Amino acid sequence: MGAGETLEREIREQSEAVRRQLELGRGAAESVASTLRTRQPVAIIMAARGSSDNAARYAQYVFGAHNGKVVALATPSLFTLYQRPPSMKSCAAIGISQSGRSPDVVSVLREARRLGIPAIAVTNELDSPLAAAADEVLPLHAGEERAVAATKTYTVQLTAMAMISAALEGNPQRWDELSALPSFIETAIERGAQAAGQCQRYRHADRFVVIGRGFNYGTAMEISLKIKETSYVVADPYSSADFRHGPSAVLDATLPVVLIAPSGRVFNDVAELLDLCERRGSEVIAISDRESVLDRATSAFRVPGGIPEWLSPMVTVISGQWLALELARALGLDPDRPRGLSKVTETR
Amino acid sequence: MGAGETLEREIREQSEAVRRQLELGRGAAESVASTLRTRQPVAIIMAARGSSDNAARYAQYVFGAHNGKVVALATPSLFTLYQRPPSMKSCAAIGISQSGRSPDVVSVLREARRLGIPAIAVTNELDSPLAAAADEVLPLHAGEERAVAATKTYTVQLTAMAMISAALEGNPQRWDELSALPSFIETAIERGAQAAGQCQRYRHADRFVVIGRGFNYGTAMEISLKIKETSYVVADPYSSADFRHGPSAVLDATLPVVLIAPSGRVFNDVAELLDLCERRGSEVIAISDRESVLDRATSAFRVPGGIPEWLSPMVTVISGQWLALELARALGLDPDRPRGLSKVTETR
Repeated sequence: MGAGETLEREIREQSEAVRRQLELGRGAAESVASTLRTRQPVAIIMAARGSSDNAARYAQYVFGAHNGKVVALATPSLFTLYQRPPSMKSCAAIGISQSGRSPDVVSVLREARRLGIPAIAVTNELDSPLAAAADEVLPLHAGEERAVAATKTYTVQLTAMAMISAALEGNPQRWDELSALPSFIETAIERGAQAAGQCQRYRHADRFVVIGRGFNYGTAMEISLKIKETSYVVADPYSSADFRHGPSAVLDATLPVVLIAPSGRVFNDVAELLDLCERRGSEVIAISDRESVLDRATSAFRVPGGIPEWLSPMVTVISGQWLALELARALGLDPDRPRGLSKVTETR
Repeated sequence: MGAGETLEREIREQSEAVRRQLELGRGAAESVASTLRTRQPVAIIMAARGSSDNAARYAQYVFGAHNGKVVALATPSLFTLYQRPPSMKSCAAIGISQSGRSPDVVSVLREARRLGIPAIAVTNELDSPLAAAADEVLPLHAGEERAVAATKTYTVQLTAMAMISAALEGNPQRWDELSALPSFIETAIERGAQAAGQCQRYRHADRFVVIGRGFNYGTAMEISLKIKETSYVVADPYSSADFRHGPSAVLDATLPVVLIAPSGRVFNDVAELLDLCERRGSEVIAISDRESVLDRATSAFRVPGGIPEWLSPMVTVISGQWLALELARALGLDPDRPRGLSKVTETR
């Protein structure tokens, strides 16, 4: 097989994987929602690492905006190395892990269960330590993921979070919106495959900045992680708000900027940064459905229009996956064999 | 004045500023603690941007480890751009801002006040919008900060968080430990001034990785921000746990790694990464009190021994401030006049 064929195949499987999650995962999502409705946690604590932590970041926005829930991202070292877990009484805990084998994520659910608060595992592996530690499991139907860099697992995790939110809100419109997601993803996969070639021009860049905000803040983190995992170049994720607070000083002509700017409430805030990028001579890789941004970008990933903003992260991330794959290939690397990484990383 | 003289003066003022905060700020810290003791919030929501957000990250660990509190870092865009704030009932909100003028941080405290939950402002400016939105203000006694890159404001914010935690815990030992902090900081300032010259060798690096964990995870973020603000090079902060999950692929001989490894519960987890750095040929800038790490590093910032781990962030960050200052000077830049930045950034 050629370089990155496994990764490419899994990128291409995402519409099917998300469709499967929507079909097979609704019962489990409704059940988690029912637990949350009954127990009314004051805050939901999310425990995760790596790509799954970026899915947790997405949950922070969707549970906040659509369900009015305060979401805290856990500090796993307090549970493991420090052995001083905060008191999670009146909260609920959700652990997300593809393999279900990250000891620090497991330890958060164990503590939750000890306290008698909801302990929910979201994982591909039903016989994992994470599932065993939970009192409720939401299975991911991504199918086996063989590439080291997570792609379909990530979009399926986002979908699972969106489904819990929709079930908790009890708003049929959200389910209608969700049902259109696989075809949006399909279009993004096709367009991404066509647009990826443009990324050859970045083969000499050894650093990138990736900017998103709100629902797509986690997307910025995930695209940065993909670039680092597959191409070994530094990529720095930011919220557009934080970027103005200091880090924008780094912009210059050697530093390409990925702008995640789908239509929605934060569009203007992100798109405004185009001016600054142009003044500093930074090339822009735009991921957007809006001509006003795409036309001014050096490289354009056009995502389909009409996607509700809360579901845009499952679509915008795909452009970033193609970018990472193409960049690795341009550098003569095989993203299926990234140096020094294994599929499961066990962090304490 | 020469390049970075304002910044250098403010770095040198930090032991005095922290001493002042300890002397003048105890009453306000006790008062905030008394509010938290009375109201018993299930979770504390921190709102902040830039360096202040790194202080909020520190609070997440110290309130968690010493006070058993769940701490959530706010998602300000939900309050502003999305206008869908999560329900913070049974929580408390703390906003941290040097200037007190960041609209999105103000909006979190306004919402807290509307809900009747504790709304606490931590700021230098008593007549700021943030102070006006709060029902309780904890003043910072950092004195006027003129450099664009925050230094003494940051260490004073950390000290204020530590003081709230000590007051809430009601443990006299913590106050004893705090009282020793200014002299530790003084030593770190002197040693940092001597060690900074080593950083000349990094003048051709255009990217850094900065690694810390637990109490010093926020320190990694803050040192990265300082490097970016003053030297325009990309610096990527990580928890040692997250770093193993993918980003470690970026390590190579062109990429210097800052390891924040003071004695304490997470020491081994961070120090273990030395092996990986050596295998990949990455130079290591160590900030530590331990010979086992300092001896193997390319550049060593020796911090004083005997600092309790929870107070080490006020000391380790000083090494990073010197690194950022020296790097800027080596590059012929004036960190007192960073391009495109102003002291107050108003984010919605």
